[in-house]
Amino acid sequence: MDSGWMRTVLVLLGVFGSCRGLQPDYTEQGDPELQSASGSSKYGSLWPLPQKVQISDVSFRLSVSGFRIRDAKESSAGPSCSLLQNAYRRYYEYILGGAGVKKQKPGKNWRSGPSELTELQVWITSPDSDCDAFPSVTSDESWMTSLFTFYLLGLETFSQLVYEDEYGAKSINSSVISDFPRFAHRGILLDTSRHFLPIKVILANLETMAMNKFNVFHWHIVDDPSFPYLSRTFPQLSQQGAYHPYTHVYTPADVKMVIEFARLRGIRVIPEFDTPGHTQSWGKGQPDLLTPCYSGSTPSGTFGPVNPILNTTYDFMKQFFTEVSTVFPDGYVHLGGDEVDFSCWKSNPDIKKFMDQQGFGQDYSKLESFYIQKLLDIVTTTKKGYMIWQEVFDNGVKLKPDTIIHVWKGTQQQYQNEMANITSSGYQTLLSTPWYLNRISYGQDWQGHYKADPQDFKGTEAQKKLVIGGEACLWGEYVDATNLTPRLWPRASAVAERLWSSKDVKDISDAYNRLTVHRCRMVQRGIPAEPLFYGFCPHEYKGI
Amino acid sequence: MDSGWMRTVLVLLGVFGSCRGLQPDYTEQGDPELQSASGSSKYGSLWPLPQKVQISDVSFRLSVSGFRIRDAKESSAGPSCSLLQNAYRRYYEYILGGAGVKKQKPGKNWRSGPSELTELQVWITSPDSDCDAFPSVTSDESWMTSLFTFYLLGLETFSQLVYEDEYGAKSINSSVISDFPRFAHRGILLDTSRHFLPIKVILANLETMAMNKFNVFHWHIVDDPSFPYLSRTFPQLSQQGAYHPYTHVYTPADVKMVIEFARLRGIRVIPEFDTPGHTQSWGKGQPDLLTPCYSGSTPSGTFGPVNPILNTTYDFMKQFFTEVSTVFPDGYVHLGGDEVDFSCWKSNPDIKKFMDQQGFGQDYSKLESFYIQKLLDIVTTTKKGYMIWQEVFDNGVKLKPDTIIHVWKGTQQQYQNEMANITSSGYQTLLSTPWYLNRISYGQDWQGHYKADPQDFKGTEAQKKLVIGGEACLWGEYVDATNLTPRLWPRASAVAERLWSSKDVKDISDAYNRLTVHRCRMVQRGIPAEPLFYGFCPHEYKGI
Repeated sequence: MDSGWMRTVLVLLGVFGSCRGLQPDYTEQGDPELQSASGSSKYGSLWPLPQKVQISDVSFRLSVSGFRIRDAKESSAGPSCSLLQNAYRRYYEYILGGAGVKKQKPGKNWRSGPSELTELQVWITSPDSDCDAFPSVTSDESWMTSLFTFYLLGLETFSQLVYEDEYGAKSINSSVISDFPRFAHRGILLDTSRHFLPIKVILANLETMAMNKFNVFHWHIVDDPSFPYLSRTFPQLSQQGAYHPYTHVYTPADVKMVIEFARLRGIRVIPEFDTPGHTQSWGKGQPDLLTPCYSGSTPSGTFGPVNPILNTTYDFMKQFFTEVSTVFPDGYVHLGGDEVDFSCWKSNPDIKKFMDQQGFGQDYSKLESFYIQKLLDIVTTTKKGYMIWQEVFDNGVKLKPDTIIHVWKGTQQQYQNEMANITSSGYQTLLSTPWYLNRISYGQDWQGHYKADPQDFKGTEAQKKLVIGGEACLWGEYVDATNLTPRLWPRASAVAERLWSSKDVKDISDAYNRLTVHRCRMVQRGIPAEPLFYGFCPHEYKGI
Repeated sequence: MDSGWMRTVLVLLGVFGSCRGLQPDYTEQGDPELQSASGSSKYGSLWPLPQKVQISDVSFRLSVSGFRIRDAKESSAGPSCSLLQNAYRRYYEYILGGAGVKKQKPGKNWRSGPSELTELQVWITSPDSDCDAFPSVTSDESWMTSLFTFYLLGLETFSQLVYEDEYGAKSINSSVISDFPRFAHRGILLDTSRHFLPIKVILANLETMAMNKFNVFHWHIVDDPSFPYLSRTFPQLSQQGAYHPYTHVYTPADVKMVIEFARLRGIRVIPEFDTPGHTQSWGKGQPDLLTPCYSGSTPSGTFGPVNPILNTTYDFMKQFFTEVSTVFPDGYVHLGGDEVDFSCWKSNPDIKKFMDQQGFGQDYSKLESFYIQKLLDIVTTTKKGYMIWQEVFDNGVKLKPDTIIHVWKGTQQQYQNEMANITSSGYQTLLSTPWYLNRISYGQDWQGHYKADPQDFKGTEAQKKLVIGGEACLWGEYVDATNLTPRLWPRASAVAERLWSSKDVKDISDAYNRLTVHRCRMVQRGIPAEPLFYGFCPHEYKGI
């Protein structure tokens, strides 16, 4: 999978020859906690590391007034492609606005004075590329056809090659880069139910995702605590179920903006509407949707999961997911299916009766499967593929062959077994267990995230190919607009490299050196990415 | 210690009668992590809780255009006191700018329509109060004389009583409050060496300290990694030892600004210049200050702690601390003295010789004490009191009777024993061990911080009185401008209440209810204080 396209784009350009570390070089004696690597990588600040990088010492300068990014004459795309024009503007700013995050010593060719690089030509070679299409991953290969996405990624790589020399001049070294992602699905899950996230925060994190070559925003949009999704069909869901019906909702226009902002950055938006559990907030605006729990022989006034024994439930789901299928253009929707608590179902006499009628005995996972099966059939009619959390697979629900099973539970050994089971059954899968970034601990926990590998389980090559990637999850119990961004970055960057770069890119020390500079680059681009360890950025964050 | 002054200020005013919680009241079933308390406190959002609070249902409205804060006729202070005038402006903004962080149902007296509260009179009763003085704590009682500080605190309390009623009108309920702090020393330690903190960040956190009635900023200004303090006497220290000599230093004007900003908020600034360990950055700009380490019989090129056997060391310290004593007006300076690593001293033949001459044998803690003793004598000549980390006491160094010993090590049992030992020796002490807020963990760790009590050790009443308070420490390994503020708040608020409120204020559930609203108030005042658990603020943070 050597992708000629990016070589075409970047063939004239280069990378850091040598560079000063951001860490002071004092002795570590006297402080047992001074244990970080401290130096520079021969790959400069490239993050995630491309598949092949050849670096030369020949440097070029970029003139602030003269440098241009333009469509190559031969390119099949032109000024009418707003996706590209938008990207040119964005990256011009990043490259020349205040780009180079660190100074470095001039390359060996400095003595003769560097030449000037006057333009970056973007050459789209595929005549049938659709500039207005949405990014997609429908199979192992077809992502290669989404050329525009990869040109966006190439621009990011180019921007990471630019640095400031000793005199503050923006420079780039000649080099050859071939690149492609190891996994097609590289996602971030954000949870807008436990805390509402203002649109501004979502957009800033989509922007940062692009800097890290993530390509899927898994929008866990509703859950027990609140229902901020404003449904045109069922407006009462957010009217009653959001934290506030006006200030804490996502209107159709908001959702559209998020999707378009993501598209311009090569990012898919996959919404999750998790049922039958995690639905407390749904019940407020949709009477009879949830199961009434009983205390003895009388209703307790509380409610459990979606009520699976009423026809009205499925009528509702049909209408709701039909709307979802039109609002969200991506080919997939995430249907949840995790953590269904049976205690309420068990308390309800109507449910018990239904269980008897269906011959489910005391096995409530059969009832769960009954519900899910009907839901999957409904969603199938909307022409969407679906992703589900692993419990649905574990419970033996019948799934379409293209179902993506999302692994999130257990110890390392448990999730590796799960991946082996899923893939031996022929399903595609996606890993999140080691990447629950909401779970924080003291110290450099990014190293643990970096070491986890989604193909690290016992299985055939064919099985390994069914692993389409992974997602870093930031569940919302303890994060909102005040702390989400620094908690996510650069910790999620570790996951980004694992999902993009070659399997054998695993030198923690080299990663540390590149990541510290990459994080300063994010800071300089206005993103409050937190530090890995003591040290500094030439340009510190300007906010508080 | 019933302080009539604050009763005078607030006698007409009141507090929340009842209020809606910010948490939705759905059932907790189906999500094992939904375990937070959820409701409202009869004390509204007061934080830290005053010593005595009597609340009535009689509410008054505050008119945006009509409400005034002014000096009472009888007050001994007037418009010439810029500290007060400054505070009036600040609190007018907080109270009426966008104050009330939550709506509540009207009080019982609503039916007759609330009266209007037109002014808050500030009545300074002490004729000899000095508006331009710095806040200080020199003994157990004398803080009572610093009346201005307490008027500032009274304004904060007043502002916390104001809320928005159902119609958005700013309101306050009549009540009587008597208040005073349980401990005189309520500090926050910030570390500007491991990461440089822009002045803006320091000021924002001083502002937030005032909202939480903290009164000491312990400025751990230099350490191993960098020396950002720009010394007039030894400019090479920051020239060589800062991360960057211009962008990552605190100039004399910066320091002055921090001190004045703090003073206007009743906050003392105590600088820490930690020696003889933690001084790697000092060595860069001050040759011969640090001990050369040896590898066998030759210098290894690395350096250890301050070299205690040279006269030049003490000449330097004399000049340096004389400067410090003039730059920082507070009566105390923190001299560090923690974590001295002996390995370098042990390797150095000149040190060995000196040890022999002094008859210290192999006991390097005697050498450490030798150094510290001379340092303390030097600092005593600058007319400053000093604080030191507990090792200095543990090593048996002779201390002035007014020395404050700062406890930071060990398990709960160990620090309790340490507090008992220190106070039985008659010294004043200060606790930090349970409040290392840099150490993060998943979940509501503020509850642990809240439960710790600095007087919780075996000792007499006289011993307990020697505990002057505590400090929450946020060491800088993993925090800088990008993440410091949300990591500190509201976790430090838990410590604030422990140090201010009565010992028997320890209802976690009531604290949770008040603290969630207090944190939303901080957010509304522009501070990105992170959430305690899922839920929302009426006005979410506007940044990213």
